[in-house]
Amino acid sequence: MDLVTLDDIRAAAADIAPTVLRTPLLAAPWDDGLWLKPESLQPVGSFKLRGATHAVARLDPDARARGVVTHSSGNHGQALAYAARAAGVPCTVVVPEGAPEVKVARMRAFGAEVLLVPPARRLAEAQRIVAETGATLVPPFDDRRIIAGQGTVGAEIVAALPDVDVVLVPVGGGGLASGVATAVRALRPSAAVYGVEPLLAADARDSLAAGRVVTWDVELTYRTCADGLRTNLSELTLAHLRDRLDGIVTVTEEEIRAAAGRLIREARLVVEPSGAVATAARLFRAGELPPGRTAAVITGGNADPQVLAALLTTA
Amino acid sequence: MDLVTLDDIRAAAADIAPTVLRTPLLAAPWDDGLWLKPESLQPVGSFKLRGATHAVARLDPDARARGVVTHSSGNHGQALAYAARAAGVPCTVVVPEGAPEVKVARMRAFGAEVLLVPPARRLAEAQRIVAETGATLVPPFDDRRIIAGQGTVGAEIVAALPDVDVVLVPVGGGGLASGVATAVRALRPSAAVYGVEPLLAADARDSLAAGRVVTWDVELTYRTCADGLRTNLSELTLAHLRDRLDGIVTVTEEEIRAAAGRLIREARLVVEPSGAVATAARLFRAGELPPGRTAAVITGGNADPQVLAALLTTA
Repeated sequence: MDLVTLDDIRAAAADIAPTVLRTPLLAAPWDDGLWLKPESLQPVGSFKLRGATHAVARLDPDARARGVVTHSSGNHGQALAYAARAAGVPCTVVVPEGAPEVKVARMRAFGAEVLLVPPARRLAEAQRIVAETGATLVPPFDDRRIIAGQGTVGAEIVAALPDVDVVLVPVGGGGLASGVATAVRALRPSAAVYGVEPLLAADARDSLAAGRVVTWDVELTYRTCADGLRTNLSELTLAHLRDRLDGIVTVTEEEIRAAAGRLIREARLVVEPSGAVATAARLFRAGELPPGRTAAVITGGNADPQVLAALLTTA
Repeated sequence: MDLVTLDDIRAAAADIAPTVLRTPLLAAPWDDGLWLKPESLQPVGSFKLRGATHAVARLDPDARARGVVTHSSGNHGQALAYAARAAGVPCTVVVPEGAPEVKVARMRAFGAEVLLVPPARRLAEAQRIVAETGATLVPPFDDRRIIAGQGTVGAEIVAALPDVDVVLVPVGGGGLASGVATAVRALRPSAAVYGVEPLLAADARDSLAAGRVVTWDVELTYRTCADGLRTNLSELTLAHLRDRLDGIVTVTEEEIRAAAGRLIREARLVVEPSGAVATAARLFRAGELPPGRTAAVITGGNADPQVLAALLTTA
């Protein structure tokens, strides 16, 4: 399988520079050997803006005029809406009825057309739009351009901390982990890249062990509070992770909440639970990780106020 | 009076680079004409690290060995403790008995000696240490080196947004506003710099109107939730503000809380109430400000979890 290269990531970095924030690398106040990459500070509150911006930038003029479409109502949907507006490209997001009103309002504020459909019809509806209008479907992770865009996170970590030893990256669909592992492997071969996922959605651990995509049913993955990490890998992301990831660790719900509380109270970062799993691995699973200067990716900060308020008082 | 110059600020910028974060300038998600300078992301959670680091860097070798002392138990005390540790300089912070345990613990974690004394004896105790040990007293704002250090915030804003039209900066003791006004005036003469303070601690407004330092009694200023802005100006900071500030606006408690809630929920920044007043001015006092591309300084993020939880649910 044709894997993403460092050149692909460099091309993405040039594409996204006008739209995407080069996030700082913050020293963790409680740990002299830990740095935080807060993608929560992106204008849409997550790293997803990187891949979406790169995918939109690579459209040819005809495709630009026909627009883009996606069926993700989460961070990718918001990111694609923002990226498309920044590039002057029409965008449609197919959203399941019952999605939080605040998410729909945000996508509309970014100029996207939002189509509410019954949950089971999301994919079919997106495919219908593609067939009828010639719009380009931009998937959330199963795409080489998305992986290359997310890989810019890894390149920025190495640029900011050239002697980094360990990079910890959350794994949902695996697009971010695939890109970050690609960049770090190429730019700092001696560093280890570990994926982190919730113990209650450990499909990537199982897939890497089995050597094939092992899917966890939604009835299992919905138990984790890390809602951004419930997705299964694809063939493409598994191929990257098998080739380039040094290992994977899992964290419990309690550990995720404790790490999120720490990031909010001590690093002054608003994070969503999914965004805290890499930090949780450093805090609670250090014995399963190589020692040394460690960078943890904070993937996003789009949490409900009620969830945040609860995390603030978590010990 | 000898005022701080752009050259002073440039010297400070070189001094502080190894210790202080060059914070990003974030586009405000809800306002196309507003950018946020989040000093809450500094390792100690506030801009105070800039001035403290510069003051420590300027000590001669003898003074370094004798150490530094301050009697601020707030953000400046933490900042000085951190800056001194980074420079390998001994630090003593005189703290009033009854100060929050978390603040004392943090200063001790940064290696400072913390001296708990009755509130009325803070200044005298600090002066006794200076007399007995030859340590250097580093005040929180009434000092040219502190002002020059804080001024690096203004220089970084102009570097990141060269066509900025308006800079909004909170005013407590006036050190930050003095430095930022100095930098912006010199680097971007057409931009306006406005101070912002709580209506319940409007001593800078009164001082500028009277042309002399007008002090507000602590019984008045303690009514505002913006606890970092209860301080009165000094002769030195007033001289800078009279010469270099374009104006001052005041904001209500309700406006401060609403702005803080917005920053937390929509910009994903953990802020303390004092850190939100400049944003509140843009949100609620735009009619009193010049139009155009506006930067607001978010001074800090050291709020109690209970305060944060309350702000999260503020409309």
